[in-house]
Amino acid sequence: MKTYLDCIPCFFKQGLSAARIAGLGPDEQKKVLDEIARIIPDIPMEASPPEIALGVYRAVRNSSGVDDPFKRIKNEYINYALSLYPELKKIVANSDDPLLSAVRVAIAGNIIDFGVGNDFDVEETLKETMEARFAILDYEPLKRTLLTLKTILYIGDNAGETVFDRVLIEEMEGDIVYVVREEPIINDATKEDAERSGIGEVARIISSGSPAPGTILSLCNKEFLNLFRNADLVIAKGQGNYETLSEVNREIYFLIKAKCPVIARDIGVKEKSIVLKRHINEDNK
Amino acid sequence: MKTYLDCIPCFFKQGLSAARIAGLGPDEQKKVLDEIARIIPDIPMEASPPEIALGVYRAVRNSSGVDDPFKRIKNEYINYALSLYPELKKIVANSDDPLLSAVRVAIAGNIIDFGVGNDFDVEETLKETMEARFAILDYEPLKRTLLTLKTILYIGDNAGETVFDRVLIEEMEGDIVYVVREEPIINDATKEDAERSGIGEVARIISSGSPAPGTILSLCNKEFLNLFRNADLVIAKGQGNYETLSEVNREIYFLIKAKCPVIARDIGVKEKSIVLKRHINEDNK
Repeated sequence: MKTYLDCIPCFFKQGLSAARIAGLGPDEQKKVLDEIARIIPDIPMEASPPEIALGVYRAVRNSSGVDDPFKRIKNEYINYALSLYPELKKIVANSDDPLLSAVRVAIAGNIIDFGVGNDFDVEETLKETMEARFAILDYEPLKRTLLTLKTILYIGDNAGETVFDRVLIEEMEGDIVYVVREEPIINDATKEDAERSGIGEVARIISSGSPAPGTILSLCNKEFLNLFRNADLVIAKGQGNYETLSEVNREIYFLIKAKCPVIARDIGVKEKSIVLKRHINEDNK
Repeated sequence: MKTYLDCIPCFFKQGLSAARIAGLGPDEQKKVLDEIARIIPDIPMEASPPEIALGVYRAVRNSSGVDDPFKRIKNEYINYALSLYPELKKIVANSDDPLLSAVRVAIAGNIIDFGVGNDFDVEETLKETMEARFAILDYEPLKRTLLTLKTILYIGDNAGETVFDRVLIEEMEGDIVYVVREEPIINDATKEDAERSGIGEVARIISSGSPAPGTILSLCNKEFLNLFRNADLVIAKGQGNYETLSEVNREIYFLIKAKCPVIARDIGVKEKSIVLKRHINEDNK
């Protein structure tokens, strides 16, 4: 997905929010906004939003000297999600269709996204998501694929959401590889975050190599690219992965809560919708 | 009120929205955003938001060559409000306290504000506002003042809202002067808009001289400043007037729907609150 003009005000909003979370004072917060303003005239609009966001969050990092401003928040949400884990397992176990329930759980966890805002309620979202109507639900082909496949590449998104992902991974069989970001950015999950969420017990964890809050293939490492090319199934969580992979020439299942109006419009659904979307590679269209 | 850092993303949002309303294509919309980005590093944060907004909307005007991009929208909302006028009069006439009802009507009309967004429902807001609890209600001193005063300065805000203001003006006695902006900016009311709303039948209409979406005293004309200094009562509608007059050393009654989180916080109320706030001059504090 390309960057829309509506993303530009949002980059400033994100930069300001991150600057505050990094503990910068008002003058330094203003400097971060000035730095983003300096970037804006030169941004290539055909690039995806996470490519631009990379510059925004690097501005915060450079101004604050803090490598991982969201570290405390990430740990808090991982611990909180771990405390919910027994309940999540119960919801899935008591369901008529455990796999679909686990898909819903994984999508609910996607609300833990500090790129979009910090005004969310995880338990309320979980409740809603277990009942909500999917705006897109390509469930049958996913289920069919899961009966036969061998290698599953599961591209994660945020720390804390990782625990919700684990619940879905535990409903799937096969050789599962869980993919995280190369370095800390916003509250996106890194290797350490995935490990702390217990993902290591159910999947092999690798970094995509992408330092952006998404999966920018040109920045990914060979191990990831090889798996991405050859995996029997690719699942990608959240907006950042959709933004960077929505035009890629391979089959991907996107699990998303459409939290931002621009992405909702790009997918063709209403804001706040939940989506399980099968993206088909061009050759099979 | 000074400009908060949170206003900066909003300037971009406003510029983009205005550029689209002015009919600019995507490349020209981007140029408007670049122009705003160019302004940002130099903005004096102690200035009020309407002072900065003046530059933002001038960027749109310069890029589009359109003097009054909101002209059609303003006329539409004036006509729409005029069609509601008989109902507004009925609401006030059937009320136990017609003056307070008319205050509510005037505040409800303040929702017609394209500086904040274009996703509002006038009739729904009217219904809510007639029932809503005031977050601040300095009604008794206003009522007492109205029993004795002679000259009322009523500083308007948006076109269409003008018709709602007329309903309140018709509940007041005295020598009433209605104040509008010097030139078109966003959907703020100009002389022509006030005339078309029928304000001329119940008040004398003057321009403050301010070309900004607020009342910047240093840009106001002598006639306005003289009245502002000497009027027995000053009523100021909406966010832009609050932003530019909230620290002025004279008594002012602000009638506001707090549509933006930053202003709500500055006033000390929750977002979406309705407010009738008596601002007292420093000498009487």
